[in-house]
Amino acid sequence: MSDYIRDGAEIYRRSFATIRAESDLSGLPQDVAQVAVRMIHACGMTDLVADLGYSGKVVADARRALLDGAPILCDAMMVASGVTRSRLPRDNEVVCALGDPRVPALAESMGTTRSAAALELWRDRIDGAVVAVGNAPTALFRLLELVEEGVGRPAAVLGIPVGFIGAAESKQALASSGLEYLVVHGRRGGSAMAAAAVNAIASERE
Amino acid sequence: MSDYIRDGAEIYRRSFATIRAESDLSGLPQDVAQVAVRMIHACGMTDLVADLGYSGKVVADARRALLDGAPILCDAMMVASGVTRSRLPRDNEVVCALGDPRVPALAESMGTTRSAAALELWRDRIDGAVVAVGNAPTALFRLLELVEEGVGRPAAVLGIPVGFIGAAESKQALASSGLEYLVVHGRRGGSAMAAAAVNAIASERE
Repeated sequence: MSDYIRDGAEIYRRSFATIRAESDLSGLPQDVAQVAVRMIHACGMTDLVADLGYSGKVVADARRALLDGAPILCDAMMVASGVTRSRLPRDNEVVCALGDPRVPALAESMGTTRSAAALELWRDRIDGAVVAVGNAPTALFRLLELVEEGVGRPAAVLGIPVGFIGAAESKQALASSGLEYLVVHGRRGGSAMAAAAVNAIASERE
Repeated sequence: MSDYIRDGAEIYRRSFATIRAESDLSGLPQDVAQVAVRMIHACGMTDLVADLGYSGKVVADARRALLDGAPILCDAMMVASGVTRSRLPRDNEVVCALGDPRVPALAESMGTTRSAAALELWRDRIDGAVVAVGNAPTALFRLLELVEEGVGRPAAVLGIPVGFIGAAESKQALASSGLEYLVVHGRRGGSAMAAAAVNAIASERE
């Protein structure tokens, strides 16, 4: 067991080299490819590329928003805790309201999930923000409703909820919304991929 | 967009029903199957079953340890933040030392990753603990070294690191260690799956 690689920088270097060697990134714009590499790194699956969906300016717009100090609004604590703070260009605020004590009652009164109800607590911050959904399809659906209601437009939405009920549909709805977006179509997704996308966008450093 | 399901309990129920309908769980012991369902729920992939590896008593031993108040030792903050505290039978402590300010210097002096070095800070708690590795192969390798050194034996190891360098090998090493273990062989894994395994073991409630 003594021969495993212990050098963190070398592990990263070899990991990214393996991903670039084994993934077909040729169809992706260069900035999206960089994000895809980090998302693949987070899930171990090179075939993720086939399910990626994105709008043309999503990476550029998200990056500019972060450089301008925009907050990162997350649907789940796991997403928020996966964001590497040292990569953020402006010590940007990473927000997840799911643990707020007001959320259970909000969810009850709204007749929805806590993940969706939690968005009420950042509805006045959506305009210009980078939104990262890595868990709950209902949070992504609710975001699109709030945008339709006119709360403002996020700079970009990383819509990567996971699962069997509503996940694929919520990502299709995002892709049709006219917002700048990045998704993993289908059932796959999750907080690690969502956090990886944020981390890749936050800094061009691999 | 107004017709998506908003009832959290109903989403869970339909999700688990879909997973049970589409996954081949027939080869798994019943307690492992329950854990597999929750892990599939966390990643959206029913074919995860094919890569599952486990020892005979891993679920029973981990469950008993939690009932006895054992801590849950995690390699990553994302794993720790994914553990649903309300499912824990004894308000068990969830430990991740990666953010401890001593870790960078430890990693430097040991010539290893911070994820592996962080285990030094819980080496005296390994005996009898439930260990959940959801990110770093080096953390899992280091755990096996510490067990060989005689720090004690964890009650169970959920070894689910992800990635391209060392992940598959670290899980093979765990499966050969004689410890009670659960792994996802190959490159797949991650903090969401590791947390899901903990959550499934912590409570039989779906």
